[in-house]
Amino acid sequence: MKFAVPFAIAAALLTLSSPASAQFAKPEDAVKYRQSVMFVMSQHFGRIGAMANGRAPYDAKVATDNAEIVAEMSQLPWPAFTANTDKLSQKAKSEIWSEPAKFKEHNEKLMDSTGKLLAAAKTNSFDNLKSAFGNTAQTCKGCHDNFRNQ
Amino acid sequence: MKFAVPFAIAAALLTLSSPASAQFAKPEDAVKYRQSVMFVMSQHFGRIGAMANGRAPYDAKVATDNAEIVAEMSQLPWPAFTANTDKLSQKAKSEIWSEPAKFKEHNEKLMDSTGKLLAAAKTNSFDNLKSAFGNTAQTCKGCHDNFRNQ
Repeated sequence: MKFAVPFAIAAALLTLSSPASAQFAKPEDAVKYRQSVMFVMSQHFGRIGAMANGRAPYDAKVATDNAEIVAEMSQLPWPAFTANTDKLSQKAKSEIWSEPAKFKEHNEKLMDSTGKLLAAAKTNSFDNLKSAFGNTAQTCKGCHDNFRNQ
Repeated sequence: MKFAVPFAIAAALLTLSSPASAQFAKPEDAVKYRQSVMFVMSQHFGRIGAMANGRAPYDAKVATDNAEIVAEMSQLPWPAFTANTDKLSQKAKSEIWSEPAKFKEHNEKLMDSTGKLLAAAKTNSFDNLKSAFGNTAQTCKGCHDNFRNQ
């Protein structure tokens, strides 16, 4: 967990330090930023999934390395869902902005899940990794079902 | 430096664990991955630049938070310059693949620079931050001049 916590703090501080929209030169940059973060996260999460689902050999160190990146990336996208981007992405549902408390709850659930995924990876137990991968995948899906158009 | 070093190790292990191209389902994913990483890195680097250049108030903690993300992101893109992507991006010069040793040298120079940027940010000295920002920006430019079409 040594990575996830400082990143959570970092993300919180970045959010607090200035209005989120002020961090991006233009709204399109905010959209591109969060989509970039999500894509990088998905690639590393997918590498863990390949192991968890038996498509790649299990390697505890590789799983942990990928889980560290996933845990860190999961902290980053939220300040980029700025109000001035609500019409810019076909994928982002309006509920992101009309139900901010629920969206925040899902964001926090992901950060919690990825922290647990990293902790599970570090136990060097395939069963723990597989179980935590499944839980994290459900967390991704739960948010996507509510807040992302397919 | 507590972040940069484990990430360097993580990136090295990811590279060693399997052929780089095997990490991406298709070559287009490798291109999208490295471009995503570069964009995320540029956004956080730009926030440090805004401080260094007086467009934003200097805040040592915010500078450090951003420098941590920059240092981590700088470790990631290199395995995504896979040989099967040499014709996919207009921006990537063929020298990436024809002069791999030189490209690697520039990659390492960036990782070194961002580690120093993070260390400078942590000194809580604006002058140190400004100086390290300038050095890192020069490192970015040096690689772009050689390996990226404008």
